[in-house]
Amino acid sequence: MNQKRTLYHYPLCPFSRKVRLLLFEKGLSYGMIMETPWMRRPEFLKINPAGDVPVLIEPDGYALTDHVSICEYINEIKTTPDLMGETPRGRAEVRRLTNWFDSKFYMEVYKPLVGEKLDKVVRLSKEPDAALIRAGRANLKRHLDYLDWLTARRNYLAGRYISMADLGAAAHLSVLDYLGEINWERYPDMKAWYLKIKYRPSFNSLLMDRLAGIMPSDVYANLDF
Amino acid sequence: MNQKRTLYHYPLCPFSRKVRLLLFEKGLSYGMIMETPWMRRPEFLKINPAGDVPVLIEPDGYALTDHVSICEYINEIKTTPDLMGETPRGRAEVRRLTNWFDSKFYMEVYKPLVGEKLDKVVRLSKEPDAALIRAGRANLKRHLDYLDWLTARRNYLAGRYISMADLGAAAHLSVLDYLGEINWERYPDMKAWYLKIKYRPSFNSLLMDRLAGIMPSDVYANLDF
Repeated sequence: MNQKRTLYHYPLCPFSRKVRLLLFEKGLSYGMIMETPWMRRPEFLKINPAGDVPVLIEPDGYALTDHVSICEYINEIKTTPDLMGETPRGRAEVRRLTNWFDSKFYMEVYKPLVGEKLDKVVRLSKEPDAALIRAGRANLKRHLDYLDWLTARRNYLAGRYISMADLGAAAHLSVLDYLGEINWERYPDMKAWYLKIKYRPSFNSLLMDRLAGIMPSDVYANLDF
Repeated sequence: MNQKRTLYHYPLCPFSRKVRLLLFEKGLSYGMIMETPWMRRPEFLKINPAGDVPVLIEPDGYALTDHVSICEYINEIKTTPDLMGETPRGRAEVRRLTNWFDSKFYMEVYKPLVGEKLDKVVRLSKEPDAALIRAGRANLKRHLDYLDWLTARRNYLAGRYISMADLGAAAHLSVLDYLGEINWERYPDMKAWYLKIKYRPSFNSLLMDRLAGIMPSDVYANLDF
């Protein structure tokens, strides 16, 4: 029996957010189940033994894990609108930038900054490690300088048109923004680019996320900040 | 003016090895330049400011970075033999397993074990951190148990046919094998699978790698171990 396509996600997981944006942009309807990965819920571990989100359950019950595979899969089963680029080199640039955020930005910014806050504040109700937070903020500044430089030169991250790279990067930034970690006025070109993504209907569901214990920053859901 | 396709690589970099295997399997000829990433050679940083390998230079001089993008690019410009799977779900499984090694195995095994040895022994001529090495070895055992379980059930990692997942996984294992970190007799099904990949002509160039300061293990280039 066919069911609704369902995404297991965590609100402050940038990979879950990337998949949510992509599904909406592709016009694929889906339901969501919030999963807190560190709870290691036995029913969820049966679906994904690795225990991480996102996990996409297709209408026939087939389960897909690994956010990179999930995004390529969605792009293959629904080819329009094209969010991957038109030529092999165009697609290589889209994937390079997407992977940049998913690996480098994730390791250098998300892990020490967001990961530390989630692990200590939300999971253990303790103080985060100040040295890690400082390191994450220093790395964040470096990455945002690059993004401001790039968005001053390009309409969208990978070129003239919106692509997976924009969705992925905005997904990562939106998590930092939720936590009030982005000083938007410092990066005018990046801010102008981010607003273009933030105004899209696909972003709406992200802006409505609220997590018990951590409320979003003042600018997070504000479209006129 | 067109030149030869060229790969900047480092011999014990699993991502470089994955691309070398893929180029050969696709029948694309290429030259290689060994680049030691931590040297941060100014001429190389002009090509790839991030400073990491592999970097692929196409015959017309176009440079591609990021190993995931490079592999997808190669697969797009040369579609035969098909190493990505035949259906969207088949490809999702190939990508999932490839990414498993490139992210989880890399973070949990390569970084603490190989990365530590390269950083301390090769780069700084110091003793590696014993606690990191121990942690890497414990993680390695867990990953190889899974791989032995998987190869007992499947002809190749993602199913009946050879795919990117086999090339990527074998590339990672070959680096551990170079350093003598794999006890093959403990994992008979994994060993039988690895030998199938090791016998392929594409693997030859990997088996001839020799790095000053670290010689390969006795079994590394042995096809009858």
